[in-house]
Amino acid sequence: MAKRTTIIDIGSNSMTLVIYEKSSRFAFHLIEKVRSSVRIGENAYSDNGELTPEAMDRAFYTLQDFMQISKSYKARKVFCVATSALRDAPNRSLFVQRVRRNLKLNIKVIDGTKEAYYGALAALNLLPPFKEAVTVDIGGGSTELAKIKDGKIVDTISLNVGTVRLKELFFDRKKGFKDASKYVEEVLSEVPSHFRSDVVIGIGGTIRALSKAIMREQKYPIDTLHAFEYKYDRYEKFIKKVAKSPVLKLKDFPISSSRYDTIREGSTIFYVLNKRLKTRKVVTSKAGVREGVYLHDILRNTNYRFPHNFNVSIKSLLDRFALLPRQCEHTRRIADEIYGALCDEFDREKRYRFELLQAAKLVLIFNRLNIYSNSDYSFFFLLENLNFSLSHKSKLLIAILLRFSQKGKVDSTIYKNYKKLLPDSETMAWLTFIITLSEAIIRDKNLDPVEVVYDGTLLTITSERELFLAKEIVKKIKKPKTFAVILKSKTQG
Amino acid sequence: MAKRTTIIDIGSNSMTLVIYEKSSRFAFHLIEKVRSSVRIGENAYSDNGELTPEAMDRAFYTLQDFMQISKSYKARKVFCVATSALRDAPNRSLFVQRVRRNLKLNIKVIDGTKEAYYGALAALNLLPPFKEAVTVDIGGGSTELAKIKDGKIVDTISLNVGTVRLKELFFDRKKGFKDASKYVEEVLSEVPSHFRSDVVIGIGGTIRALSKAIMREQKYPIDTLHAFEYKYDRYEKFIKKVAKSPVLKLKDFPISSSRYDTIREGSTIFYVLNKRLKTRKVVTSKAGVREGVYLHDILRNTNYRFPHNFNVSIKSLLDRFALLPRQCEHTRRIADEIYGALCDEFDREKRYRFELLQAAKLVLIFNRLNIYSNSDYSFFFLLENLNFSLSHKSKLLIAILLRFSQKGKVDSTIYKNYKKLLPDSETMAWLTFIITLSEAIIRDKNLDPVEVVYDGTLLTITSERELFLAKEIVKKIKKPKTFAVILKSKTQG
Repeated sequence: MAKRTTIIDIGSNSMTLVIYEKSSRFAFHLIEKVRSSVRIGENAYSDNGELTPEAMDRAFYTLQDFMQISKSYKARKVFCVATSALRDAPNRSLFVQRVRRNLKLNIKVIDGTKEAYYGALAALNLLPPFKEAVTVDIGGGSTELAKIKDGKIVDTISLNVGTVRLKELFFDRKKGFKDASKYVEEVLSEVPSHFRSDVVIGIGGTIRALSKAIMREQKYPIDTLHAFEYKYDRYEKFIKKVAKSPVLKLKDFPISSSRYDTIREGSTIFYVLNKRLKTRKVVTSKAGVREGVYLHDILRNTNYRFPHNFNVSIKSLLDRFALLPRQCEHTRRIADEIYGALCDEFDREKRYRFELLQAAKLVLIFNRLNIYSNSDYSFFFLLENLNFSLSHKSKLLIAILLRFSQKGKVDSTIYKNYKKLLPDSETMAWLTFIITLSEAIIRDKNLDPVEVVYDGTLLTITSERELFLAKEIVKKIKKPKTFAVILKSKTQG
Repeated sequence: MAKRTTIIDIGSNSMTLVIYEKSSRFAFHLIEKVRSSVRIGENAYSDNGELTPEAMDRAFYTLQDFMQISKSYKARKVFCVATSALRDAPNRSLFVQRVRRNLKLNIKVIDGTKEAYYGALAALNLLPPFKEAVTVDIGGGSTELAKIKDGKIVDTISLNVGTVRLKELFFDRKKGFKDASKYVEEVLSEVPSHFRSDVVIGIGGTIRALSKAIMREQKYPIDTLHAFEYKYDRYEKFIKKVAKSPVLKLKDFPISSSRYDTIREGSTIFYVLNKRLKTRKVVTSKAGVREGVYLHDILRNTNYRFPHNFNVSIKSLLDRFALLPRQCEHTRRIADEIYGALCDEFDREKRYRFELLQAAKLVLIFNRLNIYSNSDYSFFFLLENLNFSLSHKSKLLIAILLRFSQKGKVDSTIYKNYKKLLPDSETMAWLTFIITLSEAIIRDKNLDPVEVVYDGTLLTITSERELFLAKEIVKKIKKPKTFAVILKSKTQG
């Protein structure tokens, strides 16, 4: 039985259940996600935080359904965390007890610094590596910040300002940006100056919605929010404009109508906060408290970090789809041998070795995903499943090399679409050549090592065996410059 | 350990290995496919069929690699069949013995009627149901016909005419369509008149290439060859034109250059054959001898037919991707209840019940495939994986209902693209409503039965439980006409 864990997160606006399945010690993937707009905090902020009986009922029935779902999947652990809506509710214990008694579920009401910590833990482990940043999680009832430096969470703070709170205190009462931003400024004056950071990692619905809008405006070539980055000063005006927009004008922005509810409030907070933090770059994180809670559990014996050189997305793909794991690893070795022989031609600084070798590991999986297919759905599948700890440039390069390996050459139409995130076309041609050749050599699934020698005019690949199937591909392969490819068997002498 | 079977097929032009994995008694899917252009029959037809030493070497090394691949996957059975190239080679036993001795592989050289039988077995079990048809498999060295009537293969015949043979005898010797077609006509005069059939099921590379070209010409909305149909009289001229084309003009047809080699020869055979058979409709089959050999093994205890009401594609998807199989089945029941209550409104003849219920079974799988995704790759994935025993209309309807269920409404842009293969937009709205509602009800994964009553203005769904999560969806669901939806819990009275 696969090991499954349920995480339930009770926010002011909505409740979300996710179920993760572990495929090996540190690799996992999402198997279920259900979100319900419970609005447990409805009418609470203007009423001293008291939860209404109706809101508690809605939340209770939703949790009942969530427990049913968790049981159906035979999840072994359930973690349920609640943030500001319950934290700030004087009558929360009524609700917590009812749930404990009737559903046998322990709601952990976490304080703001814990909430900030979980968000930071997710960013630290699931975003591409960075040296220094501050995570910002704008929620319905509070906003959490965590300062991260050199792989450590060095400080956290929770601020009593959130979108729903701001809405009920200002925007719903016909007071807009001006009053609200003044209020936010006051709250933010608590933030110590050592939180300042060039890089802000944005968590939560508001920041995601803004990033989505910016991606649309840029005609950004890939449709992935997680790890999407933008220069803040280029979009500061835009964010301010959203914050100041009359509600009826929100439709002029490329923002989903489901966000109209609190986007102005969230943008106000984000705008004021970035002023204070002197933000230069925003990195979007789709991973937040839920992921943090899960990571806190699975990484408890490794100091809350993944092992060095471990990539959870790639490992999860290998765990789930590799029928021949040794051959996957061997393809990586083959690609590395060929790369080692050729890299002086196009990549002296070894900038693309990592992506090439990851792609090589995934070649057999890609072929398998493609097996019934004419289309390129596997490319998009990979793009989506290479979500964690990889920059957009890295994951796109990995996925597109696999796509090009199918035809053995760079498809210039496709390349053009993604050009601004990819290496130059000469480099692409070399990398595509190497991945295609590696695929040709592993085609017979043989695990014999290969030796690769290149002298500028001749690329010689020697193996114990015949490399018979590879020869057919090599005949047709497109080379990045003029040289001959010789496949030699040792037994031939 | 999953049960895997390797099938190797030695044709005149190429050798192909496939590996199938069984996921339950009758369900399987392809996990590996390797093709090599061995041309074992090269220069054979003009030389009395003798295999050359070079061709035998190429074939031997390829088989050696194939055996390595099969071993890597730990396939439990290996079936290797050879058709006309070996059948017609006086020196075949030399090759067969060498392979048996060195590779421990038994090549089964099958006669033409057996070859026709395997192709027909694949068509019978893997195409949408039909009453009467003749399968036509145009190969390199021979052409096989099988007459199928009422689910039985009633007669088979193998003709000594194939593309490579025709090429070497005519087209390579500067004799073209006229001489070749006369020759083919003579050979075909052997075909007894009871083979005549309105429907020709086409197998093999030539017929596939022609179908592909016709799909392009039609701007056919889906990219699936298997089960693609066309009216023969509309394309007879086109096929004749290909057959008569000078080789340098082939590029004017939407035909892949890898087919130039034998497309004129194949088209000549197909053209003459259709004249003789008085073909009215051509159905393309991507399943042929290899699939037939595999089916012959797995269906040996069920009279070589799948059980009644069994669909191998759908079962294979459920086997591989359903984490909650009982809930998948329950979703089908829920959809059937709702359909039963509503069908008089839009589908009195119950034309779309089958597709709706298949879609319902797959709802949870579709959600899961979609879980990390913004895009619609899961839709294309499904289209490709619903390949067998479903008409294009059926599989498209199933896949698109699942796609529309995500947003809870018909997407009119997408609908327009596929319109000519789909029901009218009113029917689509009803079906989309039912699948969306079914998904909403199964969202809590509860297996309690539901009762559905509809009186023209009120749709009432009653369950033991609260249907709390469903209520949220129902509020927003788009209805195909004005009526109210009430979700009732029995415990509420």
